Amino acid sequence: MSAIRYELIKTCKQSGARLGKIHTPHGIIDTPIFMPVGTLATVKSMTPEELKEMDARIILSNTYHLYMRPGHKLIEKAGGLHKFMNWDRAILTDSGGFQVFSLGPLRKISEEGVEFRSHIDGSKHFISPEKAIEIQNSLGADIIMSFDECAPYPADYDYVKKSLERTTRWAKRGKDAHKYPEKQALFGIVQGGMYKDLRYQSAMELMEIDFPGYSIGGLSVGEPKDIMNEVLENTTPLLPKDKPRYLMGVGSPDDLLEGVIRGVDMFDCVLPTRIARNGTALTSLGKIVVRNATYQEDFTPLDPNCSCYTCRNYSRAYIRHLVKCNEILASRLITTHNLHFLLKLMEDVREAIMNDRLLDFKNDFFRSYGLL
Amino acid sequence: MSAIRYELIKTCKQSGARLGKIHTPHGIIDTPIFMPVGTLATVKSMTPEELKEMDARIILSNTYHLYMRPGHKLIEKAGGLHKFMNWDRAILTDSGGFQVFSLGPLRKISEEGVEFRSHIDGSKHFISPEKAIEIQNSLGADIIMSFDECAPYPADYDYVKKSLERTTRWAKRGKDAHKYPEKQALFGIVQGGMYKDLRYQSAMELMEIDFPGYSIGGLSVGEPKDIMNEVLENTTPLLPKDKPRYLMGVGSPDDLLEGVIRGVDMFDCVLPTRIARNGTALTSLGKIVVRNATYQEDFTPLDPNCSCYTCRNYSRAYIRHLVKCNEILASRLITTHNLHFLLKLMEDVREAIMNDRLLDFKNDFFRSYGLL
Ligand SMILES: [Zn+2]
Ligand SMILES: [Zn+2]
Repeated sequence: MSAIRYELIKTCKQSGARLGKIHTPHGIIDTPIFMPVGTLATVKSMTPEELKEMDARIILSNTYHLYMRPGHKLIEKAGGLHKFMNWDRAILTDSGGFQVFSLGPLRKISEEGVEFRSHIDGSKHFISPEKAIEIQNSLGADIIMSFDECAPYPADYDYVKKSLERTTRWAKRGKDAHKYPEKQALFGIVQGGMYKDLRYQSAMELMEIDFPGYSIGGLSVGEPKDIMNEVLENTTPLLPKDKPRYLMGVGSPDDLLEGVIRGVDMFDCVLPTRIARNGTALTSLGKIVVRNATYQEDFTPLDPNCSCYTCRNYSRAYIRHLVKCNEILASRLITTHNLHFLLKLMEDVREAIMNDRLLDFKNDFFRSYGLL
Repeated sequence: MSAIRYELIKTCKQSGARLGKIHTPHGIIDTPIFMPVGTLATVKSMTPEELKEMDARIILSNTYHLYMRPGHKLIEKAGGLHKFMNWDRAILTDSGGFQVFSLGPLRKISEEGVEFRSHIDGSKHFISPEKAIEIQNSLGADIIMSFDECAPYPADYDYVKKSLERTTRWAKRGKDAHKYPEKQALFGIVQGGMYKDLRYQSAMELMEIDFPGYSIGGLSVGEPKDIMNEVLENTTPLLPKDKPRYLMGVGSPDDLLEGVIRGVDMFDCVLPTRIARNGTALTSLGKIVVRNATYQEDFTPLDPNCSCYTCRNYSRAYIRHLVKCNEILASRLITTHNLHFLLKLMEDVREAIMNDRLLDFKNDFFRSYGLL
């Protein structure tokens, strides 16, 4: 039996978006969902309790980074990632493929796997599809990913075709190597770049192998937004209705909405945590750069329409002061707000699907956010 | 009427240490007390709620730093420091004297006050005793400090004598300039270096002016510990029994105990927060440097005898991982523990005074901490 089960609750009559639940060994996730990123076994600056307070149900962590530091064997000894980092809700780990391929000249790809040098100390490593699963088996996340190659944008047809076919073979090898399918759900990752027929080929090959969920990779890699949306429109209808669909690395508010409308259930992105540390807040009225002098004597909250801890207790003027002084509390307060903002957005999205009015909701949101 | 009232509960029969309460406009403080330092209107990495969870009753903030950033006028516009930083318990501000004098070649002292250049942008400023009070009136702390000169160690007799006499004149000018004595209690600061008769002179002159509390300055500036203890022994008996005594800038666990035994009621120090950010924890078994390889696979808490949030939920191995990856959560978790440790130590100290056994407690603590 699979480690997870996707339950489709309803489809929005106005948009076609899906409302669902994913049942995992660490709790139920209402979808569509945004997953905060905890690269190194910590969602930067946050405690698990704070993530729960904003109703985060699942977080993402990075296989490559944990393999490097502190090492998957150490985490296994600690009793697994959940225990190591004090998080008893669901976790998803990526396969490490994206990070390894991003190393550029530091890596060498073969059919067997990828040889690369550490971005930290230059030491030599080799990750095969089997090794990526072995590492993820040690980490113990509820949802894990096949080792894939994410083709760059732009990339020519032949390259993308060869790459997706290898990704299929790697997905099969990963599935065969997976030790705990009843505890950890292994997703296949649909590749195929911006080519419709290659996306079709990839989806069909992976569904043939059969996974409990499917990721859509190779998007948000520099292509224009309308191309991303078109690829999504062509890809999600190919995927089984009774399995979750995860769009990897996507997380700006508008991309989340466009993805949900095109049938995506799960998203992750470092955006809300990363821009928080640079002093930028996502608000219902658009992004604001808190550092700017405009906010020096602004004693209103980051977002007048937000009810998060930060907005209930602190002014833009105070947060700006903390940002300018490089105080840790600045990162904490803005990260809290940004994550709350995206999690609340997805909650509103789920409610809009329930009421068959997601397109209306999108219009209202885009207008307020300054995108229309 | 004074803004605060000191209530002497009892004196330890074994040590002579004082158990008391300070009634302030923002709550009651049980003494002896350790005050966490919030230099820039934030106790680094902590929220006010977290400080309350560890039962912090009063925090310290720095006049010089707040005058520079974001400026006292801004904080006054925000409704004062309590409101600006979301802290509704007591606050103490220093006078800025210590920071200004630390600027070395960047400052010029005269009877009128101190001219100096900003450590941030080199801009020119002038702080007089009146200005130091004006700034602190804008900030609105419950307890504020006279503008004083903290003589370096070592310093010759004539220099220290002239310096303390000017500190007396400045204290008088500050008291005359103070606008809100019924809302903010202004302390005089006893100086006099390591010279017994000069400490006596300083204490007598300040008591003649009459303040609702007295600070002991010019200690923990590089002198040997036995000299500091001797100066304390000579100084505290001079001070009125019905007023609180505050030993400035002192906060290692052993110094706290030695100070309490010599009749001190209040302490502050950046030590627990600063070393936390370097990955060092204070524990009942002594200091530990969490970064060390020894702790790589140590799945026990920072301090086996601690019940703080960090020790209840995280292992040394996890915290070490966070420290090595420069994760913000490392600072948070160790700061939480270190502050809890000192606040709990002072709670235990108060209990030991209540039971007339502070010397026994000190022996036990020193033995466990590795000082005996
Ligand atoms: Zn907010
Ligand atoms: Zn602790």
